[in-house]
Amino acid sequence: MSCAIVGQSGGPTAAINATLAGVIKGAANAHQIGKIDTLFGMKNGIEGLLKEDLISLNEYFRDDVALSHLSDTPGAALGSCRLKLPADKTEAIYDQIFAILQKYDIHYFFYIGGNDSMDTTAKLSQISKERGYPLYVIGVPKTIDNDLCGTDHTPGFGSAAKFISTVISEIMCDTAVYTKPAVTIVEIMGRDAGWLTASAALCADRAPDLIYLPEVPFSIPQFLEDVKAALKCRSDVVVAVSEGIRLQDGSYVGASTSSGVKDAFGHQYLGGAGKALEMLVKEEIGCKVRSVEINLPQRCAAHLASATDISESFAIGCAAVDYAIRQITGHMMVFIRKPSSQYEIEIGSLPVSEIANQVKAVPRHFINEKGNYPTPECIAYLTPLIQGERYITFVGGVPSFFRF
Amino acid sequence: MSCAIVGQSGGPTAAINATLAGVIKGAANAHQIGKIDTLFGMKNGIEGLLKEDLISLNEYFRDDVALSHLSDTPGAALGSCRLKLPADKTEAIYDQIFAILQKYDIHYFFYIGGNDSMDTTAKLSQISKERGYPLYVIGVPKTIDNDLCGTDHTPGFGSAAKFISTVISEIMCDTAVYTKPAVTIVEIMGRDAGWLTASAALCADRAPDLIYLPEVPFSIPQFLEDVKAALKCRSDVVVAVSEGIRLQDGSYVGASTSSGVKDAFGHQYLGGAGKALEMLVKEEIGCKVRSVEINLPQRCAAHLASATDISESFAIGCAAVDYAIRQITGHMMVFIRKPSSQYEIEIGSLPVSEIANQVKAVPRHFINEKGNYPTPECIAYLTPLIQGERYITFVGGVPSFFRF
Repeated sequence: MSCAIVGQSGGPTAAINATLAGVIKGAANAHQIGKIDTLFGMKNGIEGLLKEDLISLNEYFRDDVALSHLSDTPGAALGSCRLKLPADKTEAIYDQIFAILQKYDIHYFFYIGGNDSMDTTAKLSQISKERGYPLYVIGVPKTIDNDLCGTDHTPGFGSAAKFISTVISEIMCDTAVYTKPAVTIVEIMGRDAGWLTASAALCADRAPDLIYLPEVPFSIPQFLEDVKAALKCRSDVVVAVSEGIRLQDGSYVGASTSSGVKDAFGHQYLGGAGKALEMLVKEEIGCKVRSVEINLPQRCAAHLASATDISESFAIGCAAVDYAIRQITGHMMVFIRKPSSQYEIEIGSLPVSEIANQVKAVPRHFINEKGNYPTPECIAYLTPLIQGERYITFVGGVPSFFRF
Repeated sequence: MSCAIVGQSGGPTAAINATLAGVIKGAANAHQIGKIDTLFGMKNGIEGLLKEDLISLNEYFRDDVALSHLSDTPGAALGSCRLKLPADKTEAIYDQIFAILQKYDIHYFFYIGGNDSMDTTAKLSQISKERGYPLYVIGVPKTIDNDLCGTDHTPGFGSAAKFISTVISEIMCDTAVYTKPAVTIVEIMGRDAGWLTASAALCADRAPDLIYLPEVPFSIPQFLEDVKAALKCRSDVVVAVSEGIRLQDGSYVGASTSSGVKDAFGHQYLGGAGKALEMLVKEEIGCKVRSVEINLPQRCAAHLASATDISESFAIGCAAVDYAIRQITGHMMVFIRKPSSQYEIEIGSLPVSEIANQVKAVPRHFINEKGNYPTPECIAYLTPLIQGERYITFVGGVPSFFRF
């Protein structure tokens, strides 16, 4: 029996720990049939592997209560990192990684992360082959942004979408109380892809009047016209905008307030699309206006997770282990939606090399012609992903989360 | 049998509709014993009364399902207003109000609102006496700020406090994932009183490292020292600050980014304490830092309401009707905490004139000597108010709320 290791990387979500719990469950099954001895968790992703900061996860193999608690915990229970492995395969860091893998007899490697983490998966799989070290590397996707290619949707997205549609439903009740004309602009996360912003359309009773995604160039005159038209129909106009909306020339609407700081992968830090539009409405229309960022809770509100998302996130983690012990490597696990009227998914995998470093944008036919609302087809795609509520454990009035 | 009227005023909360449901229940009871004929709801507070925009609420007298649904709906189902009645009792508006009350045979008047709404309660009660029109006016408090005097706490506060402590618990999981030193500053609502910000201390597993309330003058050198000391103990430092923190000279920390706009009651619009401190930490300490506003959901997150708050808010609305039919007038309903080890409250009332237009600040002994954390006594006061969860109705993955 050889050993396995699992790590988490990139930005945390409300569902990434459900995938970790799934990997633990999958490893427990593989342990029973004599395929995996110890499942190690690396603290803070590859960084922890390099420091040999590893913990055995075997004690949770039969602890379904702990795995359920872990599934309902936001963040990344093993810790995360943003270390990007070098392109040069001869770098010393790879000698170090493979020496440690050999030392611990690790031949199965699970990396739960976003687009950038799949890059790590592809590299390790490729280099292990070149070095002749048997290593079965499986990437398990997570991102609230839903922008990974090859999968119907990403684990973590449904919970973020459910938080967004729920709090916007609540904000719609709040903004409805006054009779004086007022515009409320809700800024939603999403650098390049508008999936999260499109989820604002899922409100049950009344959805925002206007929804702008980054996939369609943003026109300031058209926006002002849209808002004025909406104000003719009702006094409390609510607009949802993606943080990443851009003008025709590609410049960010919120760029003037951006800090200019770039992350390790070269993404420009964004902020302020909502604030910029607030100022615009104040100056050009002159009515009462405010902008609201719903901020970090979009990616960590475990108390409002989608039950569908959490159970799928667990299942895909569990399946990843099955794939690895069948000696599949360099693959990312994916969801395949069955073409039936009832929502049903299958779990599969694809070579990471085919899908890494691409962004899955909201397709144009998912956005109306005017570019200011998702189409019914888009809403039909999104709706199943936010179904079901998790009733997490509250202790003394507040959630109590799992810690290793 | 004479009639009654109820209205909502001021900023909405997650519990103000529970109080409205309680008033409806109380009126239903009074109806059964022949004391109240019709209960009218005024749309948008006094504004709706002046326009005779009234609806009969009698159809809900026996509809407990609707009342429960209403209790779980945020906002203000009857609509709100910010109209302040004039001080001059001879103004024509009072002739208009009393003519309408007489026209509809209304002799019981319930006004659910904050500090400013209690002023309306006091005026109408006083003027009705002077005019010899029998009117029993009861104010029912609501404010997420918990800053009304005379009551142990305010309806609406517990739910806002529960939202804050829950999302901060989740944010703590999120910030814990990286090893690089980073400071996260969470800005919490609270113009003059720090009750909501103090609630950040209620997190179950790990609470913020530092909590600053507006009741203690904010010292920039002390803040920087506090943050540096916290960074020596851990890499992910979380700070909760009230939007209303002020320097020794009384100027707001966030004032530089404030719009300068004043509301109808003369409050200065606030914004940016968190952002101002983010800039300060970036410049003076130089570590990674971000500020997070948790924004409007603080006052409308019905999905995370405190069950204690909702049931108390209902009960105080119900009791208000009992007080009015006992011909009490010009009173505000209050909660009285019994001096026992177990949390228990009684409902009572006090003359509004004794308590209106005052702010109940967090007492100095509820804040530690350094001014950077609530004391255990403060935490003991707050804890019972956030107990219990409401499992609101989700339809198709999102909440469905009550509408008249």
